[in-house]
Amino acid sequence: MAALFLCIYNPKYNLQAFSRGLLARGDTIKPIRLQLSKKPSVRTSSAIKCSSLSSFTPNLDEAQEILEEAQEHMEDNRPLHEAWREIQGCSDWKDLLDPMNPYLRKEIIRYGEFAQACYDSFDFDPRSKYCGTCKYQGAHFFEKLDMADRGYHMTRYLYATSNINLPNFFQKSNLSSVWSQHANWMGYVAVSTDENEIRRLGRRDIVVAWRGTVTYLEWIHDLKDILCPAHFRDDPSIKIESGFLDLYTTKETTCKYCTFSVREQVLAEIKRIIERYKGEELSITITGHSLGAALAILSAYDIAEMKLNIVDNGTSMAKIPITVFSFSSPRVGNLKFKERCDELGIKVLRVTNVHDKVPTVPGIFANEKFQYQKYIEDKISFPWSYAHVGAELALDHTESPFLKQTRDLGCVHNLEAHLHLVDGYHGKGRQFSLATKRDIALVNKSSDFLKSEYGVPAHWRQDENKGMVRSGDGRWILPERPGLEAHPPDTAHHLEQVLKLSKSSLEML
Amino acid sequence: MAALFLCIYNPKYNLQAFSRGLLARGDTIKPIRLQLSKKPSVRTSSAIKCSSLSSFTPNLDEAQEILEEAQEHMEDNRPLHEAWREIQGCSDWKDLLDPMNPYLRKEIIRYGEFAQACYDSFDFDPRSKYCGTCKYQGAHFFEKLDMADRGYHMTRYLYATSNINLPNFFQKSNLSSVWSQHANWMGYVAVSTDENEIRRLGRRDIVVAWRGTVTYLEWIHDLKDILCPAHFRDDPSIKIESGFLDLYTTKETTCKYCTFSVREQVLAEIKRIIERYKGEELSITITGHSLGAALAILSAYDIAEMKLNIVDNGTSMAKIPITVFSFSSPRVGNLKFKERCDELGIKVLRVTNVHDKVPTVPGIFANEKFQYQKYIEDKISFPWSYAHVGAELALDHTESPFLKQTRDLGCVHNLEAHLHLVDGYHGKGRQFSLATKRDIALVNKSSDFLKSEYGVPAHWRQDENKGMVRSGDGRWILPERPGLEAHPPDTAHHLEQVLKLSKSSLEML
Repeated sequence: MAALFLCIYNPKYNLQAFSRGLLARGDTIKPIRLQLSKKPSVRTSSAIKCSSLSSFTPNLDEAQEILEEAQEHMEDNRPLHEAWREIQGCSDWKDLLDPMNPYLRKEIIRYGEFAQACYDSFDFDPRSKYCGTCKYQGAHFFEKLDMADRGYHMTRYLYATSNINLPNFFQKSNLSSVWSQHANWMGYVAVSTDENEIRRLGRRDIVVAWRGTVTYLEWIHDLKDILCPAHFRDDPSIKIESGFLDLYTTKETTCKYCTFSVREQVLAEIKRIIERYKGEELSITITGHSLGAALAILSAYDIAEMKLNIVDNGTSMAKIPITVFSFSSPRVGNLKFKERCDELGIKVLRVTNVHDKVPTVPGIFANEKFQYQKYIEDKISFPWSYAHVGAELALDHTESPFLKQTRDLGCVHNLEAHLHLVDGYHGKGRQFSLATKRDIALVNKSSDFLKSEYGVPAHWRQDENKGMVRSGDGRWILPERPGLEAHPPDTAHHLEQVLKLSKSSLEML
Repeated sequence: MAALFLCIYNPKYNLQAFSRGLLARGDTIKPIRLQLSKKPSVRTSSAIKCSSLSSFTPNLDEAQEILEEAQEHMEDNRPLHEAWREIQGCSDWKDLLDPMNPYLRKEIIRYGEFAQACYDSFDFDPRSKYCGTCKYQGAHFFEKLDMADRGYHMTRYLYATSNINLPNFFQKSNLSSVWSQHANWMGYVAVSTDENEIRRLGRRDIVVAWRGTVTYLEWIHDLKDILCPAHFRDDPSIKIESGFLDLYTTKETTCKYCTFSVREQVLAEIKRIIERYKGEELSITITGHSLGAALAILSAYDIAEMKLNIVDNGTSMAKIPITVFSFSSPRVGNLKFKERCDELGIKVLRVTNVHDKVPTVPGIFANEKFQYQKYIEDKISFPWSYAHVGAELALDHTESPFLKQTRDLGCVHNLEAHLHLVDGYHGKGRQFSLATKRDIALVNKSSDFLKSEYGVPAHWRQDENKGMVRSGDGRWILPERPGLEAHPPDTAHHLEQVLKLSKSSLEML
């Protein structure tokens, strides 16, 4: 193992520090020189033998911190605005996952938090007539979730109709007078608008975040495990699990939120934004957890298949990179679907917990691990063959010293727990240690996963009095919310452009 | 049935109104004349026959409201500051319960809300190191609970030790570093200090409120059903269920909150307050729900038995009335105990729901309904003989059109539900109708009892994020609370006075 070793001497604190866990006695250490921006003066060691390690009396925590910062600078000292294409997966994250690249870790967490925001804002209460909506208006979404500093602007909410066979996924109010009989809020499209953030990212980023399910996994049993041709293009051998496909494509003309399918909504919006920021460097990043991860991959495929990311820059055609950061994703389609995603250049990084069951379905019988998958799919049209798309970042919650040793699905599948695991992951066989010191309390937002010694209440994320407030006359009420906008009036127009464009692109390619 | 009938004519609204449900065709109506303070002009009818009822076209809701106000004025048009002794039970609530006296109804609800405040403020979370405390400091208690307008001042919190055999009653933190290994907050003593309120009440009121259990009733099975002599005085035949007696009298010298038993705490505090307001007209009102109701009755007995309510007014001895408004109380002691309470002049009004099981225990075998109870207790010292104390106000939740038809103990035993039933109760066989229009949403604070059509979330009373807040560095923490005061330094002094006084009173009587 190529071990990194730093001997750090801080004259102010008389601190000598070294990295732990990476060295064995007898290793020879290569002297390195580096410049750290923030930390106290750091001098590189001369070459030493590890046999002399016992003479150090370091403060390990501080050493670890300095080391990580040093590591970051050493491994890729280009700033994000230069390295962003690699971080977004242009080289399929080669050499970035083991050891874990610090920029990539931060970006996975940052996008994961966009997906988590869908849970933190969703109205799950069947006693509320707004059950199934986002609790906050789009204009206040990031502010309400303490994410105003992310530098993104909400551009559109996405709705799907529940008139499909996933009864355990859709949240329905018990009341008769409700905001909609059919619709469920499914996520959003946002775009980076803060100039500093755009500079930091090296491009203007369009993010699509899909809502999944926090812990309630009964929808898995609703999946019919039937593959249907997607028919976004003309190759009928590209197939998608029918539950996901229905969710993505079904519309309901009697409901104003579902006059467009969620597919049409997201395509029209992506088209609109790309049009709006024509000529700028752009990226499309799609994220989601659980069922939301399936929609993330499906929509990424769709956007690419419809050629929305091919833009005419006057002199040449440019391709906007499409990246999916998915969490606990089930399989979405067949091997043909996976191959087509690869062909289209969609980059998918699937973050999983090896103890989670969701990434193993559907496709228990035949999946990407089965060596004759291609044969059975092509030759005998085996109907239950599924393949994961992209690269996997497989984590293991038993390596976190902060978590309980449980196999409870509500815990091991939890999105916040995945983000915690990403923060602690440094590479295969490397010690778990929180790189960004991400708040462990977040793990217990909607789970009971943290060891009780940390004193964090279980399932602590909740509204004061479930949103009940006292009205002027002293009575407790669930306040009325401002009317929800259904679809922007230009949706049909942009959708038309999508279809027109996809045809013309087809002809050109 | 002596029916009340009002014919009300409001020239402004051309409204004619009458009471519903109280009259049968053919009844003769006695003309009455009354003056209402707030309502539009009201003229009494001439005597009419009910056969002419069909000629009225009233707005029934408005009529009902006017009628209730009129009823209040008619039945006892003395203001509360004159009628308070009857309301506090000096005549054992004779003629006040059926039909229900409006003043009494309001007072039962007012005191019930003092008991409810113990639930609304208690820290039940075993993940909190403050589990088992009151969430609010005494100085802010009423303000935090929106009860600042009640005109009462918190004078002392009461703590009991858990070193007794009620493991399912005490709330214990899972953490090792906690505010106390032994103590649980049990309620409080407060005194009316607002001059307007004192004028309205006709006296300065000392209130003692005891915490019980909201829905978790396992403590019932912990009750050993063993009667022990109370020994507050010298008659050993006065016996109390040992669990209640232990809870009331046990101390724990290793814990600063339990160096005095809760009995000693409450006696010392009552003594101190009576001393402080010597010469004023006073009342002692004790309230509690469930196990808290047992403590209410026990402490009322104790205060009277210790003669704390006998005060020397210079020329003569006066007796401060002691009243208990209890909710869902179990039985507390034997028949001798009940007889002694009567002898001492303690007035107990027990509000119950006929479908609740708690008021039937202990004493399933032998209780006040058993005609030979006195015989078996006196002659054969039957060891499981219990008797309820005082008058009962038996309500029936199936008469409320707002509640579900459930027998779930968590619902039928719920304190807020009892207060709702009190509000709707007008007398036996009379129609349920909310007299003070008390907010029905309160019923679902800690239950799922309201019919779902009212759209009130179940168990909605909850803190935002279970009390977690973001600290300066953005991390989520359960904030530290200010240190809890254990016992005022003069507790021992007042307790000594209690003992001295009880002896001297003994000699004088």
